[in-house]
Amino acid sequence: MDRLDAIFAPQSIAVLGASSQKGKVGHDIFANILYGGYQGTLYPVNPTAKSILSVKCYKSITAIPDPVDLAMLILPPKIALNAVEECIAKGVKGIVIVSAGFKEVGGEGLEIEQKIQKMCQDAHIRLVGPNCLGVINPDPSVSLNASFSKRMPAHGNISFISQSGALCTAVLDFAADKGFGFSKFISIGNKADVDELDLLRYYHKDPNTDVVMIYMEELSRNAKEFISEVRQMTSGINPTPVVVIKSGTSDAGAAAAASHTGSLAGSDTIYDAIFEQSGIIRCDTVNELFDYAQAIASKKVPKGDKIAIVTNAGGPGIIATDMSEHSGLKLAKFSEETVKELRRYLPPTANFHNPVDVIGDAARDRYENTLATVMSDHGVDSVLIILTPQSMTDAMGTAEAIVSIAKKSVKPIVCAFMGVVDVSDGVKLLQQNNVPVYQFPESAARALGALYSQQKWLSRKILPQYRLEFDKAKADQIIQKHLDAGQFVLDEMDGSELLKCYGFKTLKMEIASTPEKAVEIANHIGYPVALKIVSPQILHKSDAGGVKIGIKTSADVCAAFESIMKSAADYNPSAELKGVLIQEMAQSGKEVILGASRHPGFGHAVMFGLGGIFVEVYKDVVFRMAPMGRNVVRRMVKSIKGYPILAGFRGEPKTDIEMLEKNLVSLRTMVDNHPIIKELDINPLFVHKDGDGTTVADIIITLEPIIPNKLLE
Amino acid sequence: MDRLDAIFAPQSIAVLGASSQKGKVGHDIFANILYGGYQGTLYPVNPTAKSILSVKCYKSITAIPDPVDLAMLILPPKIALNAVEECIAKGVKGIVIVSAGFKEVGGEGLEIEQKIQKMCQDAHIRLVGPNCLGVINPDPSVSLNASFSKRMPAHGNISFISQSGALCTAVLDFAADKGFGFSKFISIGNKADVDELDLLRYYHKDPNTDVVMIYMEELSRNAKEFISEVRQMTSGINPTPVVVIKSGTSDAGAAAAASHTGSLAGSDTIYDAIFEQSGIIRCDTVNELFDYAQAIASKKVPKGDKIAIVTNAGGPGIIATDMSEHSGLKLAKFSEETVKELRRYLPPTANFHNPVDVIGDAARDRYENTLATVMSDHGVDSVLIILTPQSMTDAMGTAEAIVSIAKKSVKPIVCAFMGVVDVSDGVKLLQQNNVPVYQFPESAARALGALYSQQKWLSRKILPQYRLEFDKAKADQIIQKHLDAGQFVLDEMDGSELLKCYGFKTLKMEIASTPEKAVEIANHIGYPVALKIVSPQILHKSDAGGVKIGIKTSADVCAAFESIMKSAADYNPSAELKGVLIQEMAQSGKEVILGASRHPGFGHAVMFGLGGIFVEVYKDVVFRMAPMGRNVVRRMVKSIKGYPILAGFRGEPKTDIEMLEKNLVSLRTMVDNHPIIKELDINPLFVHKDGDGTTVADIIITLEPIIPNKLLE
Repeated sequence: MDRLDAIFAPQSIAVLGASSQKGKVGHDIFANILYGGYQGTLYPVNPTAKSILSVKCYKSITAIPDPVDLAMLILPPKIALNAVEECIAKGVKGIVIVSAGFKEVGGEGLEIEQKIQKMCQDAHIRLVGPNCLGVINPDPSVSLNASFSKRMPAHGNISFISQSGALCTAVLDFAADKGFGFSKFISIGNKADVDELDLLRYYHKDPNTDVVMIYMEELSRNAKEFISEVRQMTSGINPTPVVVIKSGTSDAGAAAAASHTGSLAGSDTIYDAIFEQSGIIRCDTVNELFDYAQAIASKKVPKGDKIAIVTNAGGPGIIATDMSEHSGLKLAKFSEETVKELRRYLPPTANFHNPVDVIGDAARDRYENTLATVMSDHGVDSVLIILTPQSMTDAMGTAEAIVSIAKKSVKPIVCAFMGVVDVSDGVKLLQQNNVPVYQFPESAARALGALYSQQKWLSRKILPQYRLEFDKAKADQIIQKHLDAGQFVLDEMDGSELLKCYGFKTLKMEIASTPEKAVEIANHIGYPVALKIVSPQILHKSDAGGVKIGIKTSADVCAAFESIMKSAADYNPSAELKGVLIQEMAQSGKEVILGASRHPGFGHAVMFGLGGIFVEVYKDVVFRMAPMGRNVVRRMVKSIKGYPILAGFRGEPKTDIEMLEKNLVSLRTMVDNHPIIKELDINPLFVHKDGDGTTVADIIITLEPIIPNKLLE
Repeated sequence: MDRLDAIFAPQSIAVLGASSQKGKVGHDIFANILYGGYQGTLYPVNPTAKSILSVKCYKSITAIPDPVDLAMLILPPKIALNAVEECIAKGVKGIVIVSAGFKEVGGEGLEIEQKIQKMCQDAHIRLVGPNCLGVINPDPSVSLNASFSKRMPAHGNISFISQSGALCTAVLDFAADKGFGFSKFISIGNKADVDELDLLRYYHKDPNTDVVMIYMEELSRNAKEFISEVRQMTSGINPTPVVVIKSGTSDAGAAAAASHTGSLAGSDTIYDAIFEQSGIIRCDTVNELFDYAQAIASKKVPKGDKIAIVTNAGGPGIIATDMSEHSGLKLAKFSEETVKELRRYLPPTANFHNPVDVIGDAARDRYENTLATVMSDHGVDSVLIILTPQSMTDAMGTAEAIVSIAKKSVKPIVCAFMGVVDVSDGVKLLQQNNVPVYQFPESAARALGALYSQQKWLSRKILPQYRLEFDKAKADQIIQKHLDAGQFVLDEMDGSELLKCYGFKTLKMEIASTPEKAVEIANHIGYPVALKIVSPQILHKSDAGGVKIGIKTSADVCAAFESIMKSAADYNPSAELKGVLIQEMAQSGKEVILGASRHPGFGHAVMFGLGGIFVEVYKDVVFRMAPMGRNVVRRMVKSIKGYPILAGFRGEPKTDIEMLEKNLVSLRTMVDNHPIIKELDINPLFVHKDGDGTTVADIIITLEPIIPNKLLE
């Protein structure tokens, strides 16, 4: 038995802080449990009342003569602290603290919350909240409405997790209006103990939960742990799909970052990566959250992207076509037999090709015949049916026909029954039979698109990992050398040495402190060469006039040396100029940028994108968090808009994408092995033509010791 | 008096094809007018009935003893044709043909429609339809529901135009559910006569219409005429804002285009340009259409982008903050006095900064005080109020307070009252008082963003036009020379000559037919030079190996000549190779692409974007239709993502954007003067640093005579 069962399906509940006074939280929650038809035993606890709503009241939880599974606390922090002690003494299995005034107000509230958290942990008691709306389980065998909300939602197969209590009430209202059923519903507030991952684990095992909806403000776990577990839950033959709405906040600290990667890695970008890697579908609006959850809860996934549209009106059919294409679907091309069959019973003015127009005066039979016909076409993976109320329209009959066909097929059918009142009977029938139905065709098409993205995630290709070898010991030495010298910026030479330990190909280079030495080095390397300033204070060398490339003669090397030293001194008179790096010129290739930046609470985000102007103006970059093996990296590389440039564009040769993928896996390993790396840009990495590998042409690395607490801030 | 008054506010109506049989369109429409409380006189016309729904019936319209303003026809095409003749004889002022079976089925239906169109035109009768839902005017002084829909919508200040009859019914249902009021409502079907532009003119003059909603399938007018008029209507001191949902279809013909411009100019892109230039706000979903119309109908526009958010729950406040920023708004920073004032009456746990959190137990007073305070802050341009139902929440009281404050201020206030049932009284009060209210904060924030974009349009900068001189006569000659020779592709030399007539700076160039001649020309032009194949059959020269650049010696010119001729012959053995163009190398600059492509029914679309990979992979281009003067062009150039590259990025000098703007205006003039130009790419145009102008580095022009009918196809 899972310890969270005590929260969702307790045999008995004590409400500490229950009250007879209407309007008080302690009254409302008690009343909602009592009048909601809870199937267990309910005990009010209040030191002064004799009974509450006719139920005998106890002075303390310890005074209750029978065992108590769940304690709900509606008590101010100080009193709650004592109550928790008593709950532990009583041997409860779960505690929900509804009241606010804890961590979110700081000071004493925070201290008390930490104490309670520790006490529950030591006693092996699961704690929900504080500062939450409560718990709802509409399953008739439990029928628990331990919440502020008077309305017990319908019973269904969707479970909900909300970090915001306030949103819950609105969602329950909205759900009631949409005829939406829930399996389990919880508000987790401050997440002192139970958090999203705990609940996802629980819901994944729960046979009554087919989809999870989450409203998230921030993740309370390490990203790696979260991704590693959740991507298992959302995959395989018994997946639990998850849809999330996440309110992101712009990362005020990002502007001060030293690297491109750091400045592009806002927290919202990181959440995008986390959801993508976990197989979680992110929504922008609460409407989308419901729309997608409803589609997924029907438990049918299209095998491919080919959609058939059946409509009794041209305009909405066009809208559905457009939105389907925007959502990654394609209109199916019907087989000849399908068209022939459609011609048999549709009037001559109908459109027999996709989107099928059964014409405004269609009653039940045309819809029924058409749906049956297109469903049996092997080129059709899913069907979208549009019904607009016109004089001959039979919304109820059409809904019956749809339900009966849907029951016999594994292909998803989604409906847009337009209009609120005239079609409501049909809508209700579809909802009761788990056929997704929407008010407008664009919502239906978008939801089908989400279903298809679900299918792509489930059937994603998994290749064996690359076997790569690294020299971690040498890399540790290089880093330690800098730390010993109090240096937190690696210059290009040391940065290159570090990258070499992780299999990167770098350029020949050496530092010159005089023009003469520069010429000697250049003669040794071979022309042409590049010259770059070396100074720990100058990170963006080009901005300082500190870079000259394609230098072809010793005389030009001399001149370039002098010019660079002068520009750099002018640019930052207090910078320590360590000399000029003389570097082999890289073979040509496509410029990409690889980067990493560390984020408290998340670990490193690794970035990839096209280099130069592409990263600066178009921000065509993608981030991924650990864990990040070959398969994540392959999808990562493919996901940028500029991917065709690497894959061979307009007759140009394909580049060495395999080596690029290996580099990204290696970079991931490097930052995991050396978490002291704070930020890193390899910009550019030249990707040569297929088989010729890649070359690092410039590198910035900054270090920063980790203050342990910061990781969980 | 406008002739459309006969459609929207007739004194008398004859329904031809009225029927006693329930479920028939001729019955339903007659019944809806009759029972809808129509304030004029209604006459059923039916050759066999004595009376319909107790109203005396006439055998024909001419048999009616009194004058008839409007004839509604529910008759099959052939019978409708005769009926129209009788209507003309009777002297009606307007006709609405509801029935289908006309142009949309082709053949005889099309012919009859064209005949009816001509007859009405000659008789100065306005015709709506065929194939439409009808007309609704809820104004109590008219109270006309001449539609399929039983429900007469509420009276309001929003007018609707729909090309799809089916969508109308759904929209009416949806509107009833949202408590949405209409001023006028019309379905225009096949648009044989009355179309969007006619109606926009009428609505613009109508004192009872404050916003227009359009559902459009395709525009039936010349784009230039539409844009020129509509941008006047949406501007100035008495603007009529327009929101549109347009179902676009992908342009199947585009794949065959010879130019980048042609292949990128899908019809949807062209509609984007038309709406943008007309000041019309485009929506993606019907929900957005209603959300935006509702906000605009409140007739308040924010003066700036600074928004204040007031909420009783943190989560929805964060969602609103995010969506505000995505919608182009910024969170206002409150003055010290505002924060001080908020501290005075909000509890200490509240957030006194933006977004203001009045805390879950806020009743009416906290909302009222907070709203009054933030509204009077000079740094606040608009306010978004979020209310989530919690135990102390007073939705009705809060709504009253909002209404009372909104009445006294010009700053827009929008509300998100979350939840459907518990807050419905408050929602109704807000709706009745024209305060926009939404179910979720993201919708409210997005609608405020639309209001702000409305303000930006209204206050857009208008600079005096450039004075540019052109040599149209010479350009005509160059084109005529090609037409006379049966050539429809201009080679680079002639293309350059044509561009010179419109003030473009081009490169020195000459065609060589032998290697010796090539060297002679190169010596004359001066090194380095570029060599390019000249062949009418080879448009994309690089693909054919037909381009060599940066050739520095006469020996290299020889070799390049031979190589180009060979590659071109290999690439297309049947191509006529006219020789090799020897061309001056352009000064460096930023590469952009300018283009034009002609579209039946729309005229030319002119394109601008960054050149090279930017146009091919990122499709970072923008289209504009005529009319297109300096101000349209300025906003056009600024609207691409890559604009910072031209404006001076990372310390690079600003480029000559003024000359670029002049080039675009000149290009527009050129295609308007010479509509025979079918497609054109200037790719690249080098934009040099500010003051140094621009240079055309390559040009493709194709011609195609205009088949007159095609323009209106």
